[in-house]
Amino acid sequence: MVSAKLQRIVSLLSRLPGVGEKTAQRYVLHLLTTDEGVARDLGAELSTLRDQLKPCDTCGNLAEVEHRDETAVCSICADSKRDATLLCVVARVHDLLAIERAGTMRGRYFVLGKLLSPLDGVGPEDLPLLRLSRQIALHQVTELIVATPPSVDGEATALLLKRELAPIGVRITRIASGVPHGGDLEFADPITMGRALSGRQQI
Amino acid sequence: MVSAKLQRIVSLLSRLPGVGEKTAQRYVLHLLTTDEGVARDLGAELSTLRDQLKPCDTCGNLAEVEHRDETAVCSICADSKRDATLLCVVARVHDLLAIERAGTMRGRYFVLGKLLSPLDGVGPEDLPLLRLSRQIALHQVTELIVATPPSVDGEATALLLKRELAPIGVRITRIASGVPHGGDLEFADPITMGRALSGRQQI
Repeated sequence: MVSAKLQRIVSLLSRLPGVGEKTAQRYVLHLLTTDEGVARDLGAELSTLRDQLKPCDTCGNLAEVEHRDETAVCSICADSKRDATLLCVVARVHDLLAIERAGTMRGRYFVLGKLLSPLDGVGPEDLPLLRLSRQIALHQVTELIVATPPSVDGEATALLLKRELAPIGVRITRIASGVPHGGDLEFADPITMGRALSGRQQI
Repeated sequence: MVSAKLQRIVSLLSRLPGVGEKTAQRYVLHLLTTDEGVARDLGAELSTLRDQLKPCDTCGNLAEVEHRDETAVCSICADSKRDATLLCVVARVHDLLAIERAGTMRGRYFVLGKLLSPLDGVGPEDLPLLRLSRQIALHQVTELIVATPPSVDGEATALLLKRELAPIGVRITRIASGVPHGGDLEFADPITMGRALSGRQQI
């Protein structure tokens, strides 16, 4: 590499998911030729990223904090207009953001952080079930929407939540799985097609 | 978006080539969960990027500088072991780095910065031909390797360099174009195949 500085920054950028050395190099060369402010602003934002964004102490969503040691409360948990009796359980913050983009969820969230995965050694004891049941009791949650992905691990986690939490009297629902909007029935895999059929509703 | 800080950093990362909002968000969530040092180090490197990396005043390659106003001399121009009489002309720094990776170029470089492109309004007067001919005279260059890409604009630029610089007595060569290493003849396009044939050499 022609420059140690370039080498350092390329190797740091290569730590991003899906970014190899060539892509990282393209990013740097772009930042060197575009508006001068972009690299500087990005540098400033990244330097403070880990101090200013932390998991919300209540739900696990991203929360902005002023100081590192402050209690983190995310904008959703702080929003009194949100229905606290409707709780949506997701695996990751990515999933929460995807649901928020749909703009129709009026309740709150709970981020599990991981899914049940016996192959990776993640058992029921590794999931924050106690924290979740405390949230349910605290806010007198009436409906728990399980929005884990429709994968093997996601379904297993949904069944576990059903088994563990149904006894405390909360209604547990699961997001629909079927042919996506704009999708072609011709190209739907058999499992998706089966779910679309079994999950049919009267119109 | 659930957080203004997340929104800001996602919109800055979306300025990178080929990065949309979802990819940017994936980058941020990764940086929030991986080693804490990565975001901080990347932030520090990016903050100083535009102050510490500048185009080399001689060749246009990236050069490290201590202060913003320092004369920029890249590591290749500073390397006395490099043959100054062999000069390789490239369109962009990306191309220079790709040639350096091959590890067989023992001369120096000259980065044009752009290619002749009548459709985009780039004419001969927009190329740094005067600076290039001065370099040729200064270092008594004996061979000029034209390593512009084998595209319409790259070929046009190579012809222009030949027309403008051959009269000053320098030998001008062009990198080979043909079937790439590991490539299948069956899938080579007709132009590449034609070049592979016309550029054949005795073995």
